Amino acid sequence: MTEATNKAVVLTSGGLDSATCLAMAKTRGYRAYALSVDYGQRHRAELRAAQRVAAALGAAAHKVVHLELTAIGGSALTDPQISVPAEAGEGIPVTYVPARNTILLGLALAWAEVIEASDIFIGVNAVDYSGYPDCRPAFIAAFEQVASLGTRAGIEGRPFRIHAPLIKLSKAAIIHEGMRLGVDFSLTVSCYQADEAGRACRRCDACRLRRWGFEAAGIADPTRYR
Amino acid sequence: MTEATNKAVVLTSGGLDSATCLAMAKTRGYRAYALSVDYGQRHRAELRAAQRVAAALGAAAHKVVHLELTAIGGSALTDPQISVPAEAGEGIPVTYVPARNTILLGLALAWAEVIEASDIFIGVNAVDYSGYPDCRPAFIAAFEQVASLGTRAGIEGRPFRIHAPLIKLSKAAIIHEGMRLGVDFSLTVSCYQADEAGRACRRCDACRLRRWGFEAAGIADPTRYR
Repeated sequence: MTEATNKAVVLTSGGLDSATCLAMAKTRGYRAYALSVDYGQRHRAELRAAQRVAAALGAAAHKVVHLELTAIGGSALTDPQISVPAEAGEGIPVTYVPARNTILLGLALAWAEVIEASDIFIGVNAVDYSGYPDCRPAFIAAFEQVASLGTRAGIEGRPFRIHAPLIKLSKAAIIHEGMRLGVDFSLTVSCYQADEAGRACRRCDACRLRRWGFEAAGIADPTRYR
Repeated sequence: MTEATNKAVVLTSGGLDSATCLAMAKTRGYRAYALSVDYGQRHRAELRAAQRVAAALGAAAHKVVHLELTAIGGSALTDPQISVPAEAGEGIPVTYVPARNTILLGLALAWAEVIEASDIFIGVNAVDYSGYPDCRPAFIAAFEQVASLGTRAGIEGRPFRIHAPLIKLSKAAIIHEGMRLGVDFSLTVSCYQADEAGRACRRCDACRLRRWGFEAAGIADPTRYR
């Protein structure tokens, strides 16, 4: 099997980063299988955005898996009693969802096994979101071990690769890369509390980082604000 | 905080192994937070068994999280089009659920973060189920790294411990240990295709291993067969 026909599962949230990540996976010659997880997040408009992004970027398939993370809570994104802050705070933000990337990568791994893919793409970023423990390179490397040891493929000698191509890029660099690859960012939703129509609040951490990214990139911000 | 008051999340399927694992966690002085995952498995009677087991063994709490693994499929346990085999085959069985233990441990990790526990118990066994890649000691060790690197606790210097106390025990030894600790195995359901009343089929891999375990242990099998 040549690189050109390799399949990859791409975690696709509907946000700017994962859209760029999906475009990068395709540019590297993978058939992209876009996976979104409906984990009860506040920003459900992101899931509809994920569907639009997957279609626009020519994903081979798009799957949404339902997972009731609200039963576990512990984050402003999954517990309605914790508010999304309007100001950035110190340390790990309350928007951190406990073990989210471990769980998302686990689900990606399951689908990868079913479609016989050995590659997973995740749009984590250690620069702008350095407060999230599960966005760090050491975490990604550790998960690659888990993926290779805990799967049928691993036993058969096909180790998994976890690609995190955005991990060291600034938001502006991600936006430039996405533009270069033809990503239509107007389809994406980053806001932690977007309304049903996908319009952003302009105030949460995710909105701020996104807006600053477009400013730093010198590109007009296509985000629809309410 | 002393060992006696430490909390641990214990993955509790309702089967014989995880019931013994839960009893062992309590014997080691942990307050046990039992976690079951409703992932669309055929043997839904196991979830009701999990609730009975958690109550009987004095778990501090029991939580069931819903996860739609049927959307991913790839296993006789999550895809209705794949039959549970009546005979043991070669290699990795079709009852293997892709990446199941990675996902289950990820969910346990999320809850552990919320309740501020640093310990997780999982009743995997590398002896009887050696066909499952995600039951091997190397996999558990790799996940311990992921857990420590990918969490708030890890950043704050409280590494996670993944306990797999059954991993090298025979089924007979697990049964002896469970009996010693007062586990009522008549409450547990192991069968891959138990009926609604929790009665076992006697024929699937899980039934065979369980029956042989009671025979080898010299203990009357309390399983209700249909």
